[in-house]
Amino acid sequence: MKRISVDMDGVIANVYSQFITMHAAEFGKILSAGDVDGKTEEAAFENARKYVTSPGFFRTAPVMEDAAEVMLKLNEHYKLFIVSAAMEFPTSLIEKQAWLNQHFPYIGWQQIVFCGSKEIIKADIMIDDHFKNLNYFTGETILFTQPHNKLADSLHHKRVNTWREIEKLLLPR
Amino acid sequence: MKRISVDMDGVIANVYSQFITMHAAEFGKILSAGDVDGKTEEAAFENARKYVTSPGFFRTAPVMEDAAEVMLKLNEHYKLFIVSAAMEFPTSLIEKQAWLNQHFPYIGWQQIVFCGSKEIIKADIMIDDHFKNLNYFTGETILFTQPHNKLADSLHHKRVNTWREIEKLLLPR
Repeated sequence: MKRISVDMDGVIANVYSQFITMHAAEFGKILSAGDVDGKTEEAAFENARKYVTSPGFFRTAPVMEDAAEVMLKLNEHYKLFIVSAAMEFPTSLIEKQAWLNQHFPYIGWQQIVFCGSKEIIKADIMIDDHFKNLNYFTGETILFTQPHNKLADSLHHKRVNTWREIEKLLLPR
Repeated sequence: MKRISVDMDGVIANVYSQFITMHAAEFGKILSAGDVDGKTEEAAFENARKYVTSPGFFRTAPVMEDAAEVMLKLNEHYKLFIVSAAMEFPTSLIEKQAWLNQHFPYIGWQQIVFCGSKEIIKADIMIDDHFKNLNYFTGETILFTQPHNKLADSLHHKRVNTWREIEKLLLPR
């Protein structure tokens, strides 16, 4: 069975939805695609760092559309690992764990990895929204479209925009 | 720079000391080497599972002798990663993080990995006290002696008994 490393933020957890909501609550403006596309999260949301360190930011993030259903199927055909660069924000660990247990109850503790750098990850396929993780990975790489990477050339990574595209790409018809 | 994956429990954190202390507190008997050598932790300490899930078990574990000093040197010559199979005990994550920050302040968050299975770890060298982790690793393997593995053949892994031996093995004279 092939191993897949699946990122959390921006892949299965919709953190942009959280940023937009919290930014709107603070500044009274709902940012549009035009406001955020092609910008880092820090450039798009001036208080991004404050938001990610707020209690509940990760715990209440919506699940990315179709992620739970497609992941359930992937879990039958692959050795599935959730690999999240969670160490930068220590308080996020408990929230992320509780979030995974709630939304992805079929993912066992053996399948969860919280790390800092992903250069230590060995798998056959990596699904991630950040070039910094994909570029140093030696297996098959899948770039999940998020506003910050939307305008960039996907380089040698296969770009997908939705979990339905991942389903078509990785699962038998 | 070569990557090293260093285990926590039984390698840099002296969990046996914790088990023996808690067992003595509960049963009034200080177990000796003869009582615990060659046995799994669960076989050696009948309430092992209760102890590891007790608040403070990981947070107050003593540092393994010479580990802090040798790790500091390793950190200059290698890409050092602390890789702990911490996911089985969710409450341990915060304790382990705080413990690392206290005793190994030179280890950055980028260098910490909390996982379930270590089959997803890619490094050049792995230091661990468990065969289940070393046997599936493709790089150089170093077995750190602990009571549970003391009587076993170290197989193709290099056995070390102390951090001073690791120093001699991996650092220039």
